[in-house]
Amino acid sequence: MPETLLSPRNLAFELYEVLDAEALAQRPRFADHSRETFDAALSTARTIAEKFFAPHNRKADENEPRYVDGRAELIPEVKPAVDAFLEAGFLNANRDFEVGGMQLPSLVSQACFAHFQAANAGTTAYPFLTMGAANLIESFGSDEQKRLYLQPMIEGRYFGTMALTEPHAGSSLADIRTRAEPAGDGSYRLKGNKIFISGGDHELSENIVHMVLAKLPDAPPGVKGISLFIVPKYLVSENGSRGPRNDVLLAGLFHKMGWRGTTSTALNFGDNGRCVGYLVGQPHQGLACMFQMMNEARIGVGMGAVMLGYAGYLYSLEYARQRPQGRLPDNKDPHSPAVPIIEHSDVKRMLLAQKAYVEGAFDLGLYAARLFDDTQTASDDSARKQAQELLDLLTPIVKSWPSTFCLKANELAIQILGGHGYTREYPVEQYYRDNRLNPIHEGTEGIQSLDLLGRKLAQNNGAGLKQLIRSIAATGERASHHPNLDPLRQPLEQLVNRLQSVTLALLGDLAQGKVAGALANSALYLKAFGHCVIGWRWLEQAIHAELGLLKGNPADRDFYLGKLQAARYFLTWEVPGCHNELALLEARDDTCLTMQDEWF
Amino acid sequence: MPETLLSPRNLAFELYEVLDAEALAQRPRFADHSRETFDAALSTARTIAEKFFAPHNRKADENEPRYVDGRAELIPEVKPAVDAFLEAGFLNANRDFEVGGMQLPSLVSQACFAHFQAANAGTTAYPFLTMGAANLIESFGSDEQKRLYLQPMIEGRYFGTMALTEPHAGSSLADIRTRAEPAGDGSYRLKGNKIFISGGDHELSENIVHMVLAKLPDAPPGVKGISLFIVPKYLVSENGSRGPRNDVLLAGLFHKMGWRGTTSTALNFGDNGRCVGYLVGQPHQGLACMFQMMNEARIGVGMGAVMLGYAGYLYSLEYARQRPQGRLPDNKDPHSPAVPIIEHSDVKRMLLAQKAYVEGAFDLGLYAARLFDDTQTASDDSARKQAQELLDLLTPIVKSWPSTFCLKANELAIQILGGHGYTREYPVEQYYRDNRLNPIHEGTEGIQSLDLLGRKLAQNNGAGLKQLIRSIAATGERASHHPNLDPLRQPLEQLVNRLQSVTLALLGDLAQGKVAGALANSALYLKAFGHCVIGWRWLEQAIHAELGLLKGNPADRDFYLGKLQAARYFLTWEVPGCHNELALLEARDDTCLTMQDEWF
Repeated sequence: MPETLLSPRNLAFELYEVLDAEALAQRPRFADHSRETFDAALSTARTIAEKFFAPHNRKADENEPRYVDGRAELIPEVKPAVDAFLEAGFLNANRDFEVGGMQLPSLVSQACFAHFQAANAGTTAYPFLTMGAANLIESFGSDEQKRLYLQPMIEGRYFGTMALTEPHAGSSLADIRTRAEPAGDGSYRLKGNKIFISGGDHELSENIVHMVLAKLPDAPPGVKGISLFIVPKYLVSENGSRGPRNDVLLAGLFHKMGWRGTTSTALNFGDNGRCVGYLVGQPHQGLACMFQMMNEARIGVGMGAVMLGYAGYLYSLEYARQRPQGRLPDNKDPHSPAVPIIEHSDVKRMLLAQKAYVEGAFDLGLYAARLFDDTQTASDDSARKQAQELLDLLTPIVKSWPSTFCLKANELAIQILGGHGYTREYPVEQYYRDNRLNPIHEGTEGIQSLDLLGRKLAQNNGAGLKQLIRSIAATGERASHHPNLDPLRQPLEQLVNRLQSVTLALLGDLAQGKVAGALANSALYLKAFGHCVIGWRWLEQAIHAELGLLKGNPADRDFYLGKLQAARYFLTWEVPGCHNELALLEARDDTCLTMQDEWF
Repeated sequence: MPETLLSPRNLAFELYEVLDAEALAQRPRFADHSRETFDAALSTARTIAEKFFAPHNRKADENEPRYVDGRAELIPEVKPAVDAFLEAGFLNANRDFEVGGMQLPSLVSQACFAHFQAANAGTTAYPFLTMGAANLIESFGSDEQKRLYLQPMIEGRYFGTMALTEPHAGSSLADIRTRAEPAGDGSYRLKGNKIFISGGDHELSENIVHMVLAKLPDAPPGVKGISLFIVPKYLVSENGSRGPRNDVLLAGLFHKMGWRGTTSTALNFGDNGRCVGYLVGQPHQGLACMFQMMNEARIGVGMGAVMLGYAGYLYSLEYARQRPQGRLPDNKDPHSPAVPIIEHSDVKRMLLAQKAYVEGAFDLGLYAARLFDDTQTASDDSARKQAQELLDLLTPIVKSWPSTFCLKANELAIQILGGHGYTREYPVEQYYRDNRLNPIHEGTEGIQSLDLLGRKLAQNNGAGLKQLIRSIAATGERASHHPNLDPLRQPLEQLVNRLQSVTLALLGDLAQGKVAGALANSALYLKAFGHCVIGWRWLEQAIHAELGLLKGNPADRDFYLGKLQAARYFLTWEVPGCHNELALLEARDDTCLTMQDEWF
């Protein structure tokens, strides 16, 4: 049977050849683990994803949540799926054994989670949001808050959301208007409206814990005046029992083009003046807290984009193998049988591009998870700090690159299926619609580009950037031992060298206060930087494919040759194209900057 | 009130500045016309499109045709819209006055039609298909067929379809299996199944005339054995009265991701052995006949893609002007008011790219219509022949380029609206879903690329190509009188020169029988060739913008500056990027060609 979620062979390649998951099992925290326990967790994830998540993916799309009597009503298949996820322990995959967790490395838990993301993006969002909210309380909440809110989330009884966006303020959190007034008893009364709150209402759990950004009365203006609050759907008493409804009203549902399984809500806080919230962390420090959650969420969103791309790639690959159509161009005999379309060069192009996008981004997402593990469990502080610096730098790429290019993969999957791909009788159009959200939520592509160029590059005196350059150089050095890889290595080196000098020049402009000009073409920079990163990851994969071929196992030969061809596609077709972006950046091209409203 | 369908100023620029529609009124066929009559027709089209087509565009999307008792049921708003279109005479916009036509040049009728395409792609398809079917009978049908089928189509009583695709044969028409047996009375009995037949059933008209491709018993194999038949939904008696149902069964409807207003049907011909059809033209010549219709259809599809892009561009432009969000990067004062997002450089980029794509493709579509006029009404045979040669060459670009890049424009329109753009509360997501069909139907992008590289380039000893090169050179020569345009002209010349030598090399390979290698990367060729063509059209527009500026009318100044900036965007941001494609073509890169099924 063809694979539908991801390729287990490719996953094993990533975990055990490229990213050396087994080395993690040497660390004290993961000492009870081994390749066997990792594989057992992955196998469980796959089974539950195939059995409980994939089967209602289309149904959830066709029957989006309905607003009924002030509640959001979901199809009945969602709850058993989420319950199976909870029962198997995936919500606490990274938590300690002693609190019921699986104490898995992030690398492995992300790989587990990827199965659910490929099977059903909509249903997967509910536990995903809960994990983010729980981590936030774990990091910044008081002991009381942990007892009353985190613990039931860990137990799977309460779910979570993140409530940031307001009708007048999408990307611009500085301008939020939701207010929080001290009530005198240590709690706060919130008032404001939030939109696009995913998972903002449902009856999957006893309670919903909204993590809400709001401003205190004495808040300084802008992002420095944002605080973070716990606002439960139902109030919770001292002893943890669930009380009456809090003053959080489901004002309505949004109707999206895709990702319809996830309720997207408009929530009104405090319409009746009695919306109770609890400050998390310090006053005015809410954005910093939320950024921890957002950075995790951004890696998760990136992986979600990858997995929708991956599912579409596998489906179109199987279709191309089964569908006979036409003849090769040098065969003019109309009596000859039609060939499977996978034999047409242009179809191979569309499959190779998909493979390059999804397997390149899959590698990067897992690499980021591996870095996260290093930030937690590397042997010494310096290694942890370095991992954090590199992860910070890469986060905008981990989020944005798959959002753009795995969406493109979905577009190609439709094209391979042709007219069928355009119908709802086949799954690829849904992947495309679902994936279109990813370049928007958790920070648009534009926001990511500004985060990268305007903030991350210069952080810690460019420590992350220097590490990245060193890492790419180290990969290049190892690649140089394989002469086969020269044609792959060289285009990357050329691009990285040029990117480095462009980067220095732009950072110089920023340091001199030429902010508008330096940031004007941040989208070009994001594209070129992202292609360097993915090109690097493909060169890394290519080295491991060469090493794999040297081992000489005939069963693996096709797999490694496919890796080398996809690496070749990416590094020789896509990477050189980025010189166009770099030339525009070098010239400080001001076509966009100088365009005027009235000229449109 | 902001424009929603297209910019009247831009349309006037195209018609009366760039393409000189008034010169057409000098030709005998259009002697009764003038700028005033052209504008009157355009104004009528706009009014009907806004009043009858646009208002139910979303409703038709939300309520796609339903299969009820063997019939396709549409929402009630479709018929009044189509009726208004018919009553205003747009179905016969190009036909002679004496048969009730408007005797308009194709340039003007395409511009009229563009309004309907922007307002409602789904409803517009019904008259569009009817026009194509009518033209086919007009060109190839017998007098009897014209009397019984064409005449009621002209009167708007019968509608038409084109029935090509079969379940096992999408792009590969050589392999169709529908059979037509002579019945002995001059008619035929058809048997076979067709899918994706747009407009294949409805009750908008008294009858539906299916133009069906099928094979006669003595048909040679392949494309040389395909014949064309009229197969009416209801039989028509000698005196033109409508008889009983023909043996054409609506087997089912397809459920598409977009373009839902147009019924997409599966039709069974001859399930009961009594499906009557009538041969059109000569036996085995059906594909040549159908290609006339397809070439018209391809220009129409290209314009349809443009207009979806155009509608999305205008909507996102207006949104960007109205939506305040964030501050410019060099303003750190959180007390300052938020700026409209059109002031952000990255939003300007997304608007400029849309403008470059949709106005570039709009120009090309109208230029193609102008060429079509020349094929019919140019002063001498040689000029007509030349126009046909150039139009033949450009047709794959006119169809494919907007299908790819105006879809991309729709993607950008969503991005500008952010989370709102992703919801069905705003129109841009529908444009995106609707437009996704265009790279598939009427010949996929892959088919267009093979048509261009494998067939059109070498046709008539490359006469079309030589003309194109001459036309581009002539534009370049005129541009060289405007030093301002040097930075726009030079990148185009560099690309065109390189494209020419790549083209000669590939044609050389084809002549030597190296077919597989020469065609392997046809997608790259299509992209680079298309960008040359659109780059040329933008340089042409830039010249007219310069000329317009010289006239010094202050009211026009912003318009022309916008044209120049969009031309600059396309020629300096997009055109140079194509050197990557040309380098791969020069190297005869075989990454895709050598990829193997087993390696995926």
